Amino acid sequence: MKKKSEKESSSEVLSKLEGLGRDMLKEIDVGEAPTFECLLRSRGNILFDESLGYIKLGEKRETRTFLNVGQAKKFMQTVAVASKCKKFLKEDSHTSIRGLFYQLKFTLGDSVDEDLFSEQSESNPLVEDLEVALDVKREDLNLNTDRKGVVAGNLVLKDKFGGATDEIDCSKQGRSGWMIPSDVDNGMDFVSVDADYVLVVEKDALWQRLNEDKFWKKENCVLITPKGQSSRGCRRLIRRLADKKLPVYCFTDCDAWGWYIYWAIKTGSMNLAYLGSDIATPEARFIGVTMRDIVDYDFLGKLTIKTKDVDLKRAEEMLTYPWITAHKEWVEELKTVLATKKKIEQDALQGPRLSFVGEYVREKLEKKNFLP
Amino acid sequence: MKKKSEKESSSEVLSKLEGLGRDMLKEIDVGEAPTFECLLRSRGNILFDESLGYIKLGEKRETRTFLNVGQAKKFMQTVAVASKCKKFLKEDSHTSIRGLFYQLKFTLGDSVDEDLFSEQSESNPLVEDLEVALDVKREDLNLNTDRKGVVAGNLVLKDKFGGATDEIDCSKQGRSGWMIPSDVDNGMDFVSVDADYVLVVEKDALWQRLNEDKFWKKENCVLITPKGQSSRGCRRLIRRLADKKLPVYCFTDCDAWGWYIYWAIKTGSMNLAYLGSDIATPEARFIGVTMRDIVDYDFLGKLTIKTKDVDLKRAEEMLTYPWITAHKEWVEELKTVLATKKKIEQDALQGPRLSFVGEYVREKLEKKNFLP
Repeated sequence: MKKKSEKESSSEVLSKLEGLGRDMLKEIDVGEAPTFECLLRSRGNILFDESLGYIKLGEKRETRTFLNVGQAKKFMQTVAVASKCKKFLKEDSHTSIRGLFYQLKFTLGDSVDEDLFSEQSESNPLVEDLEVALDVKREDLNLNTDRKGVVAGNLVLKDKFGGATDEIDCSKQGRSGWMIPSDVDNGMDFVSVDADYVLVVEKDALWQRLNEDKFWKKENCVLITPKGQSSRGCRRLIRRLADKKLPVYCFTDCDAWGWYIYWAIKTGSMNLAYLGSDIATPEARFIGVTMRDIVDYDFLGKLTIKTKDVDLKRAEEMLTYPWITAHKEWVEELKTVLATKKKIEQDALQGPRLSFVGEYVREKLEKKNFLP
Repeated sequence: MKKKSEKESSSEVLSKLEGLGRDMLKEIDVGEAPTFECLLRSRGNILFDESLGYIKLGEKRETRTFLNVGQAKKFMQTVAVASKCKKFLKEDSHTSIRGLFYQLKFTLGDSVDEDLFSEQSESNPLVEDLEVALDVKREDLNLNTDRKGVVAGNLVLKDKFGGATDEIDCSKQGRSGWMIPSDVDNGMDFVSVDADYVLVVEKDALWQRLNEDKFWKKENCVLITPKGQSSRGCRRLIRRLADKKLPVYCFTDCDAWGWYIYWAIKTGSMNLAYLGSDIATPEARFIGVTMRDIVDYDFLGKLTIKTKDVDLKRAEEMLTYPWITAHKEWVEELKTVLATKKKIEQDALQGPRLSFVGEYVREKLEKKNFLP
């Protein structure tokens, strides 16, 4: 799988879209039915690449052809989505996949008897098809995704957007931090990154705690919170920072969600397997909270909470993933959760004193006390 | 109810907390049981003040006394919460109500046989009690709340926080905008507001659309999205902007959530009735989307979607609120929803062209075509 460039310029994406159309026209010219081909995104074509350390698609392909009763509508829909994306790129305007759906509904509503699209669930997978077929991200097609996540630290970015250019200094964003956008590639340049590492903190409340203590300044790190599960933009930003050779450390709750957040950052996830190397950061390490912490920080013992079914189920599931069971530390962690039926929140580290959160992270880093 | 000052300085809040303790000590000195008194926040003490235009608490009071078997524990808990908040203020450090809970659990875990707090559901209402009893917001007690919402426009703020002062220029935040914090009062000054009005857009996707078109620049407005239901911080920011005499216009989906978002901004909400004037903006007007729009913008007719039960239930409920039925336009709107069982999303305005969203808002404002 070829490594995508950091930034896919819109003219490159446009030529890819035009190439797609041209290839179809060529097929028509030689009397063949136009076809659309892309990698399968179904479970059977998702695999963990051990040497690369992330989840990606295999080589199984699907071909959609116009002259097939069962495929004709989906084929037309695919072409309609590609055509809209080309229009957005030409106009230099962005929208969401919901906005795309309404444009599709509006344009074709009168021209055909039957609606070409009646539900957004029809257009969404076609966007993913295009991403895979053209080897681009939907953000490159001027489609915004849900954005979430905040960053603070010695990171300066230049944001060319909507006809203006703004310089964003993530060390001067006060209590708020800089909100991570949907697209951190197109029109977004790193002016400077002056930091020793990246700290990813699951919860916004803990990020605010560390931001108030100016942890990122004292420790010279880039402080990120995905605010729970990380958005595409957030994962992509982490990947870009890792490309700058910054180590990435994740700090989450010791529970089902926390583990999921960490592993999604590290190896990518099943449903975004098609983005593979673009959003995975196999170099990431896990700082905590761990079950082992109860031994090192005995006050945590009385601040644990009972697991829920989802935590236990998730721990059992993780013990079936070979890329997780390859690490004995993780096996031990998960088995302890299953045995004790206890979990620990990051927030509990505020028990002794509010500033303890930073002390904890500092100590873990100094002792290189993290999980793989 | 006295109108609170824009900014409650931390020393004022500290003296209120100390006053609370001193009053209890005085009661003990004269041989009486110490008491804690605050306004009731239960449904029976919530009312809509017609002359002021917002939901607030009535005058019913509750007194908690230490020498009462049924009240002693809650009394002790209240004092513990107040004491922690005093500590946070003295330390000049913030945390969340979850962080507060863990501190309470940590401190008292060993000193008494029984846990003074076993669930956060015990400490949360006591925070609200303190807010009401002292006439402060929890943000004044150094307790952060969930933050959500983004702003762009000619608004410059000075943010004194964590030992530093940053100037935030909301016209230079690129594609991201400035993330609205939990506390927009303490340590947060408006340096300048150069805008003609405030536009509140329910959905982040639509905000991004308008931000890309530099709508706020062309129209000289402050462009806010609460990203769905508005947070305390977002409502408070809108209130502060309205205090600067800026008209406030709300632009939401035509459905249950959209209406709720508008009315919560305008009149406040039941569960935050105790904040009354601090977070309500009765001056706010509703731009759309409305059911009437189907007549003026006929393409919308085919972009409506079916209502869900929640929409119909909500419409029926709203028709029982006298402050809503006082406006015949709203009665007509809600009755049309109930009759047609249709609703309209803001996103549908992107049907004809992406830039139509801005054209729609502009036309509505020019024609003063909004609902009360």
